[in-house]
Amino acid sequence: MADSCKQPDAGRRIAWPTAMRLAEYLIVLEELSSDGAQVVSSRQLAALYGNNASQVRQDLASLGRTGRVGQGYAVTDLHNMIRHKLGLTRRHATAIAGCGRLGQALALHVPFTKYGMDLSAAFDVAPNIIGTRLGGLVIADTRLIPTVCRERSISLAALTVPKNSAQEVTDLLVAGGVKGILNYTRVRLKVPRDVAVQNRQIICSFILLSYAAFMHPTPDEG
Amino acid sequence: MADSCKQPDAGRRIAWPTAMRLAEYLIVLEELSSDGAQVVSSRQLAALYGNNASQVRQDLASLGRTGRVGQGYAVTDLHNMIRHKLGLTRRHATAIAGCGRLGQALALHVPFTKYGMDLSAAFDVAPNIIGTRLGGLVIADTRLIPTVCRERSISLAALTVPKNSAQEVTDLLVAGGVKGILNYTRVRLKVPRDVAVQNRQIICSFILLSYAAFMHPTPDEG
Repeated sequence: MADSCKQPDAGRRIAWPTAMRLAEYLIVLEELSSDGAQVVSSRQLAALYGNNASQVRQDLASLGRTGRVGQGYAVTDLHNMIRHKLGLTRRHATAIAGCGRLGQALALHVPFTKYGMDLSAAFDVAPNIIGTRLGGLVIADTRLIPTVCRERSISLAALTVPKNSAQEVTDLLVAGGVKGILNYTRVRLKVPRDVAVQNRQIICSFILLSYAAFMHPTPDEG
Repeated sequence: MADSCKQPDAGRRIAWPTAMRLAEYLIVLEELSSDGAQVVSSRQLAALYGNNASQVRQDLASLGRTGRVGQGYAVTDLHNMIRHKLGLTRRHATAIAGCGRLGQALALHVPFTKYGMDLSAAFDVAPNIIGTRLGGLVIADTRLIPTVCRERSISLAALTVPKNSAQEVTDLLVAGGVKGILNYTRVRLKVPRDVAVQNRQIICSFILLSYAAFMHPTPDEG
């Protein structure tokens, strides 16, 4: 899982690192909102995110008009503007391919619906799992991926299968019309150019954690 | 999960986005190596990672001398140099705090030992889970975190607990001397300045996937 810092297309809309930070600001704003906060300053947002206020102001400037100097930003407005900028106002049907522990964790704990995604299918190869329930879904046979994805207009999927079936399942997802794959396997997937892959190998997160903790001592969070 | 593009300290060693890419090159090299490849070109590495050859060459230049023009890079040498640069040649004892589905998935499927990390403890609050085995470990009571972490010199931890105990468990990890926390909860953790936190809210990965798939059509991976 890592941590792709690949920049799909820095120029076209907002830069990829900006999109990454906006996604995290969204989580912070969600928490502020559930705590009842109505206004947030760039300094507060920076402290909660862990960067500096001028970076926050620069990122939020990419959204257009959001606040006035010295008055902070309205939490709800900012939340909506980021959602709009990141395309989360459209809804996307989403699938989990691979219902092992990681697939189950994603299916049961990720708040998809809050962020424009509807978890619409879950797939596995194991006969003892197919047909059983996972949250509100019935786990379907991996071989049905193309049909089910077409029927339910599924456009996004998490790939949480073992390494040796990663490409095969990817091909089925692509055949089903899926346009974005979150790849938790350590296989580099081959996909057509119109399909986005984001690599999220979990070991990468630990590698970067180790790097941040020991090779970047006392980071200056400005 | 996600996807922190926060830059702890861009100047001191290598830039944070470079570190992120180096971590992923490592995974790619691992796969090349297990396929028996001995030499890799910047173009091949770029194709497998999904960026361009000049970016790869620039990143690898940060490692010092690695290859000669037109001859590519020796896979093993490159692998070792990246490991060294990212500090993975020192070993770090690691813990999992929270043994729900996500914690179990991390404990059982992440190849820690390959990357300089030893999974040395797992903790949970649930009496029916404490004392049971998870992989090679016996799950310990969360209250024992400070003692066990000190005893086993644990320096890194993944935080996979429910939101409402996130800060409390973080405080226990910090009391145990942990210096890096991989935060899978949606809480912004308060830690001393010498403790690194990397936020990995999984929903952020889906948000960025959706953005990459629909707001960045046909990325130029040139």
